Amino acid sequence: MPLSFDLPPAAIPGQSVDAIDTPSLILDLAPFTRNVARMQDAADRAGVKLRPHAKAHKCPEIALAQIARGAVGICCQKVSEAVPFVAAGVTDIHISNEIASPTKAALLAELARHARLSVCVDDASQIDTLAAATEAAGTQLDVFIEIDVGQGRCGVADAPAAIALAERIAAHPRLSLRGLQAYHGGIQHLRDWAARRDAAAQAAERTGAVLAKLAVAGVQCEVVTGGGSGSVEFDVGSGVYTEIQPGSYVFMDADYGSNAYPGALRFEHSLFIATTVMSVAAGDRVILDAGLKSMAVDSGLPWIWADGAASGALEYVAANDEHGIVKPRQAGNLAALPALGSRVLLVPGHCDPTLNLYDALVAVRGGVVEAVWPVAARGLSR
Amino acid sequence: MPLSFDLPPAAIPGQSVDAIDTPSLILDLAPFTRNVARMQDAADRAGVKLRPHAKAHKCPEIALAQIARGAVGICCQKVSEAVPFVAAGVTDIHISNEIASPTKAALLAELARHARLSVCVDDASQIDTLAAATEAAGTQLDVFIEIDVGQGRCGVADAPAAIALAERIAAHPRLSLRGLQAYHGGIQHLRDWAARRDAAAQAAERTGAVLAKLAVAGVQCEVVTGGGSGSVEFDVGSGVYTEIQPGSYVFMDADYGSNAYPGALRFEHSLFIATTVMSVAAGDRVILDAGLKSMAVDSGLPWIWADGAASGALEYVAANDEHGIVKPRQAGNLAALPALGSRVLLVPGHCDPTLNLYDALVAVRGGVVEAVWPVAARGLSR
Repeated sequence: MPLSFDLPPAAIPGQSVDAIDTPSLILDLAPFTRNVARMQDAADRAGVKLRPHAKAHKCPEIALAQIARGAVGICCQKVSEAVPFVAAGVTDIHISNEIASPTKAALLAELARHARLSVCVDDASQIDTLAAATEAAGTQLDVFIEIDVGQGRCGVADAPAAIALAERIAAHPRLSLRGLQAYHGGIQHLRDWAARRDAAAQAAERTGAVLAKLAVAGVQCEVVTGGGSGSVEFDVGSGVYTEIQPGSYVFMDADYGSNAYPGALRFEHSLFIATTVMSVAAGDRVILDAGLKSMAVDSGLPWIWADGAASGALEYVAANDEHGIVKPRQAGNLAALPALGSRVLLVPGHCDPTLNLYDALVAVRGGVVEAVWPVAARGLSR
Repeated sequence: MPLSFDLPPAAIPGQSVDAIDTPSLILDLAPFTRNVARMQDAADRAGVKLRPHAKAHKCPEIALAQIARGAVGICCQKVSEAVPFVAAGVTDIHISNEIASPTKAALLAELARHARLSVCVDDASQIDTLAAATEAAGTQLDVFIEIDVGQGRCGVADAPAAIALAERIAAHPRLSLRGLQAYHGGIQHLRDWAARRDAAAQAAERTGAVLAKLAVAGVQCEVVTGGGSGSVEFDVGSGVYTEIQPGSYVFMDADYGSNAYPGALRFEHSLFIATTVMSVAAGDRVILDAGLKSMAVDSGLPWIWADGAASGALEYVAANDEHGIVKPRQAGNLAALPALGSRVLLVPGHCDPTLNLYDALVAVRGGVVEAVWPVAARGLSR
């Protein structure tokens, strides 16, 4: 007999969060909404624009909520990632990354029929590839020169290199230099607040020095974009950035949650993985039904979430492909172990690659499923 | 203007592998086909059945190729994972894992209308949940008692516990005890061959001891299933396992590739990630367009593949979300760095969670795309 049914959905609106199948990715709408507002208010107070990074959530409903609250558009990290956001009606997207292939440039130039699009460059040949693609499509692109402010990844090293690229961009009528991108990923997770402040100040200072030399050379930078969820409280007041591009603040994963935030700008955990205890046979530990295929562990193992805080009694100690091993923090405290079949909530270590594992995000309010949002850009890394 | 086009496919049959967009997951069909045959021949020679683990590939086309070559069926690790395989016509599936929720039991009992299905237990309440679900659906399930042979994860500890579960299963007319599962994941990646051999022998000895006690108690185990790609050369000759369930051998990731295999049973690398150099601005390194969202790094960073072997000149040193940083192994050997826009092939560190990131697997032969296979069970961890 041929198979006559599809897999049931992750959740159904109106359902109790305790009734949905596991593992499932849960967005708690109350703290999520507060996070969206808090970042927008911080940007507004400082007079900088907020362009949240959609690589963190890959979810058009979240992008539209951010824009409704005041964001000027979104960032994407890959050209393909932008497709579902353009389809959902987002009209202003910055690809905060370089591309070096005619295939990707052609897709970007095609998307530019439907939205205002910008992209980074750090090499003359990337500019020529973009120029050829926009010429073929008959469209326009904004271009940002990326400068390396200490990350050691992409970006040119100094002002002369940036000026040379600016001249190259100016030679192509379908490309417009919009400004500079200066992002330092490496400082986002410095745990100590003062160390993060000083590192962000250094990055801003390097950016400011390049800007000054560009101005002398007559290169106008209308927009300076950068900043992440760990540095943004310093970036907004730097006087250098006109636009910030944090992403993870909507969720606050365990990695960002491990930073110290003595200042006023802190965000709440809104993203959880609902799991079920599937085996208790070992006696001194329990086994959850969520492992490497349900969470990214590159930035550490997840926290167990209990009563609105990271559990002091239980620890997720190892992730296998589809199993999570949970032990009491205090050896022998077996009374703390949850029963077979019971639910355990996790805060993932790193939100961006965790979202990239799920096709749906279950939005809940007060413990009740309100909506199931497609993670429409999941897997779109081309 | 509304968006009027979908994202182009990852590849088109007939295309050169060098022309496809990146990052993409590539299966080289020649070594893949040899791997499938080599494992089947090893099982056949030893007189044990081969039931490959589909959690490694999540791809119905691969499962059907394994079955066509002699496999008796497949393993899945989750109930939802089995759905696309049942839909593709696989008629014998073992869920090599416990389930502890009525929702999952109901789906399993429903799937049992379409295929022969079995599942593991290590607790009496799991048996009762399965019994209730099969009663409601009017279907039958085979059941395996899992024993812990040193992994410290799921499974009962000893023969008395297994006998108690066997009696419980016997009380339910819609459940049939099929045998034992004894899998030790922890020994699969012991690098030293003799250490792996001794650990596999110990696990087999523990399994044999439980089997002997079960036989005395009158509990028949028609099937004893277990073994992975790292231990299978020992498991097939153990005299204990009637069925082996390796998965990764079809691909051979970098983690399994780091084991020593002095014996005859070794497998070839068939799985690659095609990437593009997207930035060379830093001068002393290059940046690839594939990072954490294009590969799992839990078992180590990928190898750079060049001329049929792991590169001795280049090293993938760090994975960011969408960037991979590549440096020369010998500082200053800048001549070894690939040019902007050029292609770099990677062997992923861990195949199972890497497949779980991609919607499609591009099957190539002799450098030409032959087919694009859906990774139909991607993300199905429920």
